Amino acid sequence: MQAEIITIGDEILIGQIVDTNSAFIGKALNSIGVSVYQITSIQDDREHLLKAFAEAENNADIIIITGGLGPTKDDITKHTLADYLEDTLVQNDQVLQHVEQLFKKYINQPISEINKKQALVPTKAKVLMNKFGTAPGMWLEKGNKTFISLPGVPYEMKALIDNEVLPNLIKKYKRPYILHKTILTYGLGESIIAERIEAIEDTLPKHIKLAYLPSLGKVRLRLSGKGEDEAHLEMDIQSQIDKILPLIQDVFVGFQDNDEGLEQSIARQLTKKGQTLALAESCTGGKLAEQFTSHAGASAFFKGAIVSYATQTKIDLLGVSEEVINQKSVVSLEVAEAMATNIRKIIKTDYAVATTGNAGPTKGDSDAEVGTVFIAIASKNGVKAYEFNMGNHRERVINKTVNKALELLQKEIFEN
Amino acid sequence: MQAEIITIGDEILIGQIVDTNSAFIGKALNSIGVSVYQITSIQDDREHLLKAFAEAENNADIIIITGGLGPTKDDITKHTLADYLEDTLVQNDQVLQHVEQLFKKYINQPISEINKKQALVPTKAKVLMNKFGTAPGMWLEKGNKTFISLPGVPYEMKALIDNEVLPNLIKKYKRPYILHKTILTYGLGESIIAERIEAIEDTLPKHIKLAYLPSLGKVRLRLSGKGEDEAHLEMDIQSQIDKILPLIQDVFVGFQDNDEGLEQSIARQLTKKGQTLALAESCTGGKLAEQFTSHAGASAFFKGAIVSYATQTKIDLLGVSEEVINQKSVVSLEVAEAMATNIRKIIKTDYAVATTGNAGPTKGDSDAEVGTVFIAIASKNGVKAYEFNMGNHRERVINKTVNKALELLQKEIFEN
Repeated sequence: MQAEIITIGDEILIGQIVDTNSAFIGKALNSIGVSVYQITSIQDDREHLLKAFAEAENNADIIIITGGLGPTKDDITKHTLADYLEDTLVQNDQVLQHVEQLFKKYINQPISEINKKQALVPTKAKVLMNKFGTAPGMWLEKGNKTFISLPGVPYEMKALIDNEVLPNLIKKYKRPYILHKTILTYGLGESIIAERIEAIEDTLPKHIKLAYLPSLGKVRLRLSGKGEDEAHLEMDIQSQIDKILPLIQDVFVGFQDNDEGLEQSIARQLTKKGQTLALAESCTGGKLAEQFTSHAGASAFFKGAIVSYATQTKIDLLGVSEEVINQKSVVSLEVAEAMATNIRKIIKTDYAVATTGNAGPTKGDSDAEVGTVFIAIASKNGVKAYEFNMGNHRERVINKTVNKALELLQKEIFEN
Repeated sequence: MQAEIITIGDEILIGQIVDTNSAFIGKALNSIGVSVYQITSIQDDREHLLKAFAEAENNADIIIITGGLGPTKDDITKHTLADYLEDTLVQNDQVLQHVEQLFKKYINQPISEINKKQALVPTKAKVLMNKFGTAPGMWLEKGNKTFISLPGVPYEMKALIDNEVLPNLIKKYKRPYILHKTILTYGLGESIIAERIEAIEDTLPKHIKLAYLPSLGKVRLRLSGKGEDEAHLEMDIQSQIDKILPLIQDVFVGFQDNDEGLEQSIARQLTKKGQTLALAESCTGGKLAEQFTSHAGASAFFKGAIVSYATQTKIDLLGVSEEVINQKSVVSLEVAEAMATNIRKIIKTDYAVATTGNAGPTKGDSDAEVGTVFIAIASKNGVKAYEFNMGNHRERVINKTVNKALELLQKEIFEN
């Protein structure tokens, strides 16, 4: 069972927005056993749309199209898809009513002429009601191929995928199982890991694939399998994992399934133990706090943070001694330790994490080289601080520091 | 001049990662007058790669390929591209030396056998040296078509685009100018704006396109043009803008060029005036601070933030009165006001922004409905607080609150 995703919009091709819809749809389809053969992003151009529809019909059983469903003139997906499927557009009363209600509720105005067109759908389309917006999703069949047109606005598209598209695909198609298991390693390059497990890789059964995903000091090994029987597939993948793990024991960190981030895993552990966390952030500038609070349920363990970006804020709010700063520099092991120790006392938590460093591109309030970062972890066992060089690329320095801080905190929680 | 971008990797198609490379490349190509015809994401599969190369050669003059250049068995781009171009791989001594140096510097080990393969390149390839990684970029010509293969790791790819690909494309191809101007509006839906400017849209010259980009209460109107003469093109677009602006004066916020975010525009203004900012964040959980500190130069105006996620943290660190919280609820106009007023005094800044609300999915320490958010802005003129309902989707509530807070701060700075 193969799908193709077509995302439509000039804004994607000129790089004005990043296409995040495709990854969401890809993951959703995989979860019900549908593989994505290709993702194709194209402009709002009639000839190009027709060409892409024809190629996708040739490549795949299921064609999911996002974007180009707005009410303005640059949106041409609906008309072009109707033409491609030799259909015409008619007004759908249910959609019209829904659009009228949205207008009444949110802008307290009667529906405009342009927006009435949102209620036009191909005669053969099954309408997928979009409760968050005016553009309906549309499900169209041509032989055993299914074309699904969805709005490009991510939260509208996501709701339609979850509530309409997946349930209907499950009903219509018999699908195999697709399973991914991801092994997380830390501390060795992908080539060295590949050499260690070469013999296993060379003898993998045909229905299982191995991929290496290196990023920021970590390498993820992803085993992907496809099969008719879920239990068998699970066993097949597990038996490969059992062969791999003994060879990479020294760098094995854990499994990363459902793409759970380390911050979510930490959140789960702290919440379960009824323990709490505070942060004192300098070079990470609030990003560590943002990571934790982006997930629901953060208030169960996360009490708060001080983002002490200026040196004076470290002194005034975190009580870091001015003398230590003058002697050791504001980017130093001692300052990181003081920040972590003090924020833990100030907010009264079980754990505290502090970061101070120079993310660049120029030197800040200290003489520290760009990329120099100190991370400290405070707990009932005292405080531990570590020094790193995170390179000279601002965004990467911040991201690597966030990742490393999460790892060190995870380690501390694990050892306590 | 047309380009096609091909991004390779199973991780893209199963939704394990979002393809951010294409947007970066699209924007970079646009900046030198090259249009992107299509973005195609495919699996690490030989037959599929060959098919995609052939289609891209048919569609475009320039084919930029990212990914699949690692040293492990799942990486097949280099071999497949060499086969497609009827070429063979040979060792490149400069690349080998570079890989050896990287190994020596970062892992203090001699180069492994697998990594030696990173130095193999097609005989006809011009090597684009990748100073951040082991996989070289490759520039290959077939007639007047150019194939450019780049590593998939974003920061390696970006450096190669900036330092090698763009300068070489500029040398090789005569290109037109591409200009985008984006008008930012706030407060009206796209359909209503479209009705107002319909007459202008219907008479746009052929070389200028108009697109509507709605998001979170804002609608951006993007005018895109292509032409041989930069000054003429600039004038043509400006004359359309001059016709549009009088019709949308009530909702016109400004121009958004170079995709500068509102936080960058605020940063520029505060830095110029020598003014400073502090934040007290509850429901935005550090994201507002992260927005400001993600850009270089933040320390010039951003002094710090308190992320007072727990109610007790609001009392202890921000000095919000327990009585007010009990009487008015922790999600209230009064608490937002107190947070902003107090953080401004605590950190001693010109401006302060505070957020408190319920991002959901469940009710927190207050009885406030999910989506209820209060934002307060404090300045020398006192404090102003505003109530909003940001809907019931956690991620959107946080993002909308961040955007709205930036807008309110911008307004306050503007009026002062």
